[in-house]
Order: sequence, then structure tokens, then C-alpha cells
Amino acid sequence: MSLDAVLARIDETLPEATDRLMDLLRIPSISTDPAFKADCDRAADWLVADLTALGFDASKRPTTGHPMVVAHSGGTGKHILFYGHYDVQPVDPLSLWDRDPFDPELQDGPKGKLIRARGASDDKGQLMTFVEACRAWKEVNGALPPNLTLFFEGEEESGSPSLIPFMTENAAELTSDIALICDTGLFESTVPAIVTMLRGLLGEEITIKGPTKDLHSGMYGGAAMNPIRVLAKIIASLHDENGRITVPGFYDGVPELPDAVRQQWQSLSFDHAKLLGDVGLSVPAGEHDRTPLEMIWSRPTCEVNGIWGGYTGDGFKTVLPSEAHAKISFRLVGTQDPFAIRENFRNHIRALVPYDCQVSFHGYGASPAGQMAIDDPAFEKARGALTAEWGMPAAYVGCGGSIPIAGYFKSILGMDAMLIGFGRDNDQIHSPNEKYDLESFHKGIRSWARILAALA
Amino acid sequence: MSLDAVLARIDETLPEATDRLMDLLRIPSISTDPAFKADCDRAADWLVADLTALGFDASKRPTTGHPMVVAHSGGTGKHILFYGHYDVQPVDPLSLWDRDPFDPELQDGPKGKLIRARGASDDKGQLMTFVEACRAWKEVNGALPPNLTLFFEGEEESGSPSLIPFMTENAAELTSDIALICDTGLFESTVPAIVTMLRGLLGEEITIKGPTKDLHSGMYGGAAMNPIRVLAKIIASLHDENGRITVPGFYDGVPELPDAVRQQWQSLSFDHAKLLGDVGLSVPAGEHDRTPLEMIWSRPTCEVNGIWGGYTGDGFKTVLPSEAHAKISFRLVGTQDPFAIRENFRNHIRALVPYDCQVSFHGYGASPAGQMAIDDPAFEKARGALTAEWGMPAAYVGCGGSIPIAGYFKSILGMDAMLIGFGRDNDQIHSPNEKYDLESFHKGIRSWARILAALA
Repeated sequence: MSLDAVLARIDETLPEATDRLMDLLRIPSISTDPAFKADCDRAADWLVADLTALGFDASKRPTTGHPMVVAHSGGTGKHILFYGHYDVQPVDPLSLWDRDPFDPELQDGPKGKLIRARGASDDKGQLMTFVEACRAWKEVNGALPPNLTLFFEGEEESGSPSLIPFMTENAAELTSDIALICDTGLFESTVPAIVTMLRGLLGEEITIKGPTKDLHSGMYGGAAMNPIRVLAKIIASLHDENGRITVPGFYDGVPELPDAVRQQWQSLSFDHAKLLGDVGLSVPAGEHDRTPLEMIWSRPTCEVNGIWGGYTGDGFKTVLPSEAHAKISFRLVGTQDPFAIRENFRNHIRALVPYDCQVSFHGYGASPAGQMAIDDPAFEKARGALTAEWGMPAAYVGCGGSIPIAGYFKSILGMDAMLIGFGRDNDQIHSPNEKYDLESFHKGIRSWARILAALA
Repeated sequence: MSLDAVLARIDETLPEATDRLMDLLRIPSISTDPAFKADCDRAADWLVADLTALGFDASKRPTTGHPMVVAHSGGTGKHILFYGHYDVQPVDPLSLWDRDPFDPELQDGPKGKLIRARGASDDKGQLMTFVEACRAWKEVNGALPPNLTLFFEGEEESGSPSLIPFMTENAAELTSDIALICDTGLFESTVPAIVTMLRGLLGEEITIKGPTKDLHSGMYGGAAMNPIRVLAKIIASLHDENGRITVPGFYDGVPELPDAVRQQWQSLSFDHAKLLGDVGLSVPAGEHDRTPLEMIWSRPTCEVNGIWGGYTGDGFKTVLPSEAHAKISFRLVGTQDPFAIRENFRNHIRALVPYDCQVSFHGYGASPAGQMAIDDPAFEKARGALTAEWGMPAAYVGCGGSIPIAGYFKSILGMDAMLIGFGRDNDQIHSPNEKYDLESFHKGIRSWARILAALA
């Protein structure tokens, strides 16, 4: 096995690799729109054909929605699973695209060449970095890396309805020593990163009901309980004066950041002022003793995502409303238990609701955080490989959002995942004129070759 | 002058008086709908003709909207102004009416006869009680009561846009020793009442702006200020634990209830439990040391009439919104200054808004409370007359809502008003199938005859 030869092969064949990606990008595999069902199927077929040609034992696996693609390289050794998704976001508003989103083009950008198309970055371009690394590996070494499983989903952009059933039914086949997920980005567009902390998510909609009907505030104001006031008090009570969340037991399972990770984050010289300044703010709003990066990557939150009640139209109406509503979500970290927090939250609210009011709840999702066990030597090996490729020390980072697949790998298959990706903040994923830098694609392929060598 | 003869005449001519009211009810004088402009004009003409025939110096007075009707009986003595309005509410939804709203009918109700039509109670029936009292008076005594001014508006149901300019321009003509307003009701449908306290109204819409755009709560949750949380804290802070409003200086000018009035209110045996029980509540929500009747009639309030921000549709969206909004209104009593309270409220809010947020305000109306000087002997005279007619001690009551005309009489013309009316809670004013009990009409006419005699 010669890594240098593999890397050289990747450099030489970049034009062909780019052409193959272009082919895949031409398939409008929009998973959320039934009109594109056949196209999703076609994208799966394309992958199965390419992987089969490469020597994988690849198959399209039906679900009640769009098919999965599963491919095995065979052999023994450390079992590695790679995940990506071949479906893409819708393209509307089409009028804001500079060209047909499914007619990909290699363009000259201000900082080098880029591939412009829907899915170029999310996630076809990223997915193909791994396939191309395998291809170069095979071409140089005569065989694929052993005991690899590739697992491609076609429903990631439409809520992954088939994912849990499929993983549960095929757990034995999919369970590996470690998972690789390529659906994230570089840190601040320059530093390679491994996401090791993903926040979980718990959503709750609460409805406070006071009087049985809307009242005239002249006739009842002062005497009748106003559910908006009740709701405002509840929301105001959810954080204490230090920005900590007051739900009992909420911080159970919230770990302190390991010193090594904290030091690494400090060395990232993250621009906290810019994060807030970009959106017109200057003062971090969370816990008083945490930096914004810590708040976003490693601390749990409670946010109100929506509130409504009473008269909200133009002008004024002196109504004392019967109901008030709020949508509240929690980002979770560490081993916080979403179901325990839901129960504690609801009991906390019930205790705050005055005698005459009723509260009802509607839950939306309850996914735990993903916290990877970075003491697995695979993490340091991958970090070394990334550092070598990008010339910058790779970072273990957190991710404020929730990437459910990582949680499912942990909860259903019992395996940790390394989230490594090469997207940039300006890739315009989910937006018009999505692009993927040719550098991301090229160095992404090289990165996977190095990681595969390091893990071998 | 023989009161008994006048009352007998009223009894004898009730059918004719009812027919005249029916005539007026046939005119669809809906002031808010331009399609009925000619009908409003026709209602004013009808009144001018009837009053002229009665011996009043009556005229239709143009405004930029619907005309006013002003009529003088001439002569000297105590100058009394009577106010009512000839316009009516729209009738939709028409499908919920049992008959044409402008084809009035005398019907048999469960508790006696009633007049069914739009405007029967609000306010044509009430307005005509006074006109009919004058008619009987004239027929028995040969002359109208002296120095009476009748003042009928045609825009009460559409915000009275012409009222202040007209009163200001014609202040000398309209200013009287006392005003009578017939646009209210009996107390709990049985006890005659004089409204001596009307709450004022101050409306404020507040907008809290945080980040310059809606954010993803995964990317910014915890670090960026959430304007819904800020708004909730502000609203939660507006009342203390005893239900008192925390805006500085808010209680300046809030009088304690005179003992005599408090005793009278206690003697009304108001059913506090029913007031709240009717709308599914049981615990008064206002200041801890006040009864619901006090809260509604004599105490100021601060209510949130509407709130909105973030995502309020179906499902869930983990947005951290840029803005949050609330509509807040204050009911005012005594000599509370709405403009000072607006200023104090805005300063109070500004002080609560954190550094990174901006607050903006939009004011809606600012009318002071009306508190009548019941030491004017006219009040006790009228109360005696009402007590004699209804066989129940008449009460001085408050009114939780705002009847702006009373405040304007005070602020523009410097005169107190007695609000005396004969409507009942079940009259369905502003709703389908409005009615006025024939008893309200009949005893209302007799009440005014007695009051005119008492004030003479």
C-alpha cells in the first residue's frame, strides 16, 4: 500500500472524478417532492452501478420511501462504515439561480474553481470524495480497502422516515467499529475539523388556556386570568439571572469540557465578536461564564422559537384571549436524557400554571446529543491525517445543530461516528446557487485516502 | 306640570311610541359601511323631522362624515344636554338572524314583549326613550321641558371621527349644566343604574428587535439574544406578586372608592362567582385585596391583548427570531394621566431591554377615565327618580369599558355626564338578533319623564 501513489493518482484523475460527480449532479434527486421519485431511484441506481464497477458488492435496497444503497468491500479487519446521502433539497425559488441547478458547471470563482449545482456540496460532492478515494486506492493497490461498508440514504432532506426501520432491520450488516459521516464542513472554511459533539433536540409546544372564550378586556380586564401573562411568566422563569435553565434536573448529564478540548477550542481563535456582529449583536446572551463557542457547541439551551396569542393583526382590539401558545426547544448535550427533561419540563410548567388555567403539551422530537468517544485511537489517527493534508492542525469541534444520523448510529447500532466534511460556510446549501469548491472536492478525496491509510 | 299625567300619557301612547321607533329602526343606518351613507343621512332627517314636529329647533348639521342632529327646546333654566346615536352596527353574519334586521317586529319573549331589530337597543330604542318622554311632556304640559339640547351622533359605531371637531367648533352651543347619555344598561337586568365611573384606555404596541435577521437556533441558540425571551420578561415584570402594576407612577391619581359607593356596591349583591364562572374561571386574577366588581369598575389594569413572534405555524421550526411583538392596553381610572403613563411605561420598558435589543412603540389611543362628580345634586335627584320608577334602589355603578363621549364632555365641554340606560345584558347588541325589551322602552320613557321632573 502506497499512500503517496494513491494521492498522486487522485491528483492525476481529478478531471475524471469531477466528471463523474457532474454526472451524479445531473440527476434531480429531490427527495421531498414525489414528482422526483423516479430521479431518486435513478441516483441510487447510478451509485450501485459505479460502486459495482469499482468492485463493491453494492445493492439498491427498497424502503417504503426512497431506496438505500449499501455496498461492502469485503475482507476482514477493522469494520468501517461510511455514510452520505444522495438526495438533495428542492431548488425553488428557481428564479434566483444563475443557471439550471441540475446542469452542473465547473466555474472560476474568486478563490479558485468551483462546482455549481444543487447537491454539489450537500451531499453528492461530499459523498463522492469518499468513493473517489476508494477508486484511487483500488487503482493503485489492486484492491479496495478491506471491510468497508458504504451506506447512502435518499431521504435525508425529507426527514429520513425510513432510516430507523432500515437500520434496525439491518443492524447486523451495518454495525461497524466506527462510522464516518461526510455531511459537515471545515471550521471557518480553512481548518479541517472532526465534529465530536452534536447537540440533541427536544421540541415542546405549550398551550395555556384561561377563560373558556375570548373576553372583552373592559368587561373582564383585571378580574380574569390572562393566559398571555401566564405564558410570559413561565417563559421568563425558564432562565435564571445567570442565564442557566431552571427546569429541575436539566443539567444532569451535562459534562464539563475536557481541558484538552477547551484548549484546542481556544487555539482556534474563533471570532466571537464576528459571530454576533454578523447579526447585529454584541453581548453573548447565554450562561454568563461561557464563551459563545462553548455556548453553541457544548452547552444546552432553551429557546422560544415561536409565541402567539390574542389579537395580532393591524390596529388594536381590547381582547383578553382564551389561549396563548409557545413553541419551545431545547438543545441537549452530553448524556442529557430528552425524555426525562420533557417530563421535568412539563411538571415544572404545570407547577407554574395558576389554578384557573390549564396547560397542554405537544412534543416534537426528542433526540439525545451525540458525544463521541475521542479516546478511540481512530480519532487521533484521523486528526493526524487531516492535519497532514490541510497543513493546519485539525480540530475537534462541536456542532450547535443536530445531525440525527450520528445519534442513531449510537443509539441503534452502538457505534461512534467521526463527522468529517469539507463544506464551506458560503456553499449556499439549501439555497440558490449551491456550490462546492474544487479544492474541497480534491483535498476531500485526498483526506479520505489519508484517513483510510491511517485507520488501516 | 303634572308628572302623574305625563306618566299616564306615556302608558296610553306606548303603541304609537313603539310604532315610531319601528319607523326609525327600518332605516339601515350602518355608519361604518359607505354603502349605507344615504341611509345614515335619512335617519338624521327622520329625527330632525320628528323633533321639529315636536316643537324643537332641530337641524341636521353636516360633518366630513355622517351628520349630527342638534335640537334645542329653548327657554331658560338649568341647561341639560341629552346624547344618543342614530347609527347602528353592521348586521353580518346575516345568516344568524331569525329575520331581516331592518324589518323590526314586536315579539313575545319569555319575559314579556320585545322589539327585535338591529339598533333596537343600541341605540335607537334608548335614544327614543328620551324623545318620547319629551313628547308626552309636551302633550300634557303644552310645552317642552325648557332649555333642553338633544345631540345625536351618527358615527358612534365607527369611531366617532367627527365628534371632537364638531364639539370643539360648537362648544358654546353644546355646553350645558349636565349631560345625559343613554347608551348603557340596567345593572344585572333589574336594578336601575347611573354609571359614574368609566375607565379610560391607553393602548401600546411594542416591538423588541434582537438579531438583524431570523437565526437558526442550532447555530445561535444560547449565544444570541432571543427577543421573545426579552418580551416575556418584560410582560412578566409588569405586575408584582400582589397583582399590582409596576410601571412607576402608575397609581398616581387612582382614588380609593368612597365609603358610600363601596357600601352601595356591596349592597348590589353582585355575583362574583358567576362573573368568572360564566367563562370557566374561579379565582380573581387582579389585585389581591379587591373584589372582581372593584377590579372591573374602579381599578386600573394592564392587559396583554396580543403577542406574536417567531414561527407560529404547524409543526416545528428551530428559528431564533429577529423580532417579537405585543399589544398591551391599560384601563385607567380616576385622574390617571394617560400621556404620563405612556411615557413612564415606555421608559420602564426601555430600562428593561438589554443592551443588544431595540424597542419601538406604537401608541393606540389615550383616553382618560371619566369620574363623575356625584356631589352635584342632579345625581341624587336622578337616582331618586329611577328608584321610584323601577321599585329598586338605583345604584351608582362603574363601567369597565370605555365610553369616550363621557370623557369628551368632560375634557372638551367641561361638564359631567349621567350615563343612564335601560339595556339588558341579553340584548345582543353588536350581534345577530338584537332586541330591546318593551319594558326597557316603556319604563325608560317613564324614567326620563321622572328625571326631567326631578331636575326641573
